[in-house]
Amino acid sequence: MSGSGFQVWMGSIQERTEKALADLLPDAAIAPAHLHGAMRYAALGGGKRVRALLAHAAGELTGAAADSLDRVACAVELIHAYSLVHDDMPCMDDDVLRRGKPTVHVEYDEATALLTGDALQTLAFQILAERPLGPSAAEQLDMITLLARAAGSRGMAGGQALDLAAVGQQISREELEFMHLHKTGALIRASVLLGARCHAGRDDPMLEPLDRFGKLAGLLFQVVDDVLDAQSDTATLGKTAGKDADHDKPTYVSLLGLAEARALAESLLAEAQAALAPLGPSAGRLAELAAFIVHRKF
Amino acid sequence: MSGSGFQVWMGSIQERTEKALADLLPDAAIAPAHLHGAMRYAALGGGKRVRALLAHAAGELTGAAADSLDRVACAVELIHAYSLVHDDMPCMDDDVLRRGKPTVHVEYDEATALLTGDALQTLAFQILAERPLGPSAAEQLDMITLLARAAGSRGMAGGQALDLAAVGQQISREELEFMHLHKTGALIRASVLLGARCHAGRDDPMLEPLDRFGKLAGLLFQVVDDVLDAQSDTATLGKTAGKDADHDKPTYVSLLGLAEARALAESLLAEAQAALAPLGPSAGRLAELAAFIVHRKF
Repeated sequence: MSGSGFQVWMGSIQERTEKALADLLPDAAIAPAHLHGAMRYAALGGGKRVRALLAHAAGELTGAAADSLDRVACAVELIHAYSLVHDDMPCMDDDVLRRGKPTVHVEYDEATALLTGDALQTLAFQILAERPLGPSAAEQLDMITLLARAAGSRGMAGGQALDLAAVGQQISREELEFMHLHKTGALIRASVLLGARCHAGRDDPMLEPLDRFGKLAGLLFQVVDDVLDAQSDTATLGKTAGKDADHDKPTYVSLLGLAEARALAESLLAEAQAALAPLGPSAGRLAELAAFIVHRKF
Repeated sequence: MSGSGFQVWMGSIQERTEKALADLLPDAAIAPAHLHGAMRYAALGGGKRVRALLAHAAGELTGAAADSLDRVACAVELIHAYSLVHDDMPCMDDDVLRRGKPTVHVEYDEATALLTGDALQTLAFQILAERPLGPSAAEQLDMITLLARAAGSRGMAGGQALDLAAVGQQISREELEFMHLHKTGALIRASVLLGARCHAGRDDPMLEPLDRFGKLAGLLFQVVDDVLDAQSDTATLGKTAGKDADHDKPTYVSLLGLAEARALAESLLAEAQAALAPLGPSAGRLAELAAFIVHRKF
């Protein structure tokens, strides 16, 4: 499924995303140097850049310019990076390891981690606004709205609040799904749409199947994350393994068992790939990406 | 200086800002209800709304529509509210009282305070993007960029990082000014410009004197804040008084003494009002606002 063409493409997008982030983040020599150093520490040099890959794959499908896709990819990766910095803080998941490195509040301190997350979020919106992107200025405003809705209290931040409230609770599969559609799903879905909308207008018929794919890919991503968290060791994962169970958080594995959670991932993958059917063979990259999300570790 | 006409105007803007915020914040009955309740707790029912007043006064001067000014006023007040929620957290200023009420992390908990600040920031950008504002969509993108730059690592968040780094340090008056131009000044300056740009185009000659006024008003605001912090009691201030000295933070009062800090406020006020001269008598509201900033408590 993910042949060498896909591997090469993925490597090239990861590399250009890293470079674009390095260019867009303020230089660590600019005052306040400590904060800018922490922002670069948090956002550079790590992760599979799944959200950037989704944005590029969707944008290539609609014919978007690569430099617009770089900006969109950076915006979603910065929102993701900010959420990790805050999520790792002692008052949230209290985690010490992320992408194989000490978390920001460990490497710096808590106050710096707080401000780093805050400033990374701001920078994401700045990047979407400060240069022309998308078919028109009005559509660019749609894109900013789309990112804000995905990141805010009715998207990712809201999902994190639901996640906190669920600690130690018995919740149903429907409630778990609702939480994950917000916590992880909203930003993944937005990554697909933002990539597409770098070229596609708001009424483009490609957007509906892409949105359906994005929603399924987000859910898929979380199910796989739960499976990886349950079965990997910390060294392989690059973050603390088994922490969901330690924190008494409901997961797909705690709810369904490992075998059934894996089966769910395979069936969501098939559904996500089926959602791409109306887009024809040019959606192959997105199909490969969905397979990569599932098979990255098991 | 601030006659009854000004008082009536101020009351009406404060009231419409409160109403606009109440409408734009998600209802506390919508899931996640706990987070939405905390966002409303943090953003509603308090403060003099200086940033909203500045946005409205500048916008009235350029001929902006009142409903556009409401959105801009809400955006800057939400950025301000988010910064207070995070600033009050134990890892920052560790404060328990704000606007006469327990701070968000005391009333709720730290994790909720963190997410509340995050989601308030996101909402500010959503509000600037989701409805047409300003002379054109392209100019609206300028406004979003302007807010992001004012709020981010080279604006407000950067100023907070400098403030943290200054604890227990001897810093010069120039360094103190640099810090405050970021920490408080950037958002106040942006409030003036965002109000103006709800109608004024990017090359409008009014923007230059308004920007100069906004910069001086921001500095003025901070000098007065330092004076109030040094001389008020907690009940009058509605937040913990004397906390800067307790935290060993440099202030205009610690650097210059109380009398000279007050004299500086008066001279900045004169300078700010002089900056308005090219705008003629229609800038009277802004001049009154600057006087209100200085005389609000002494």
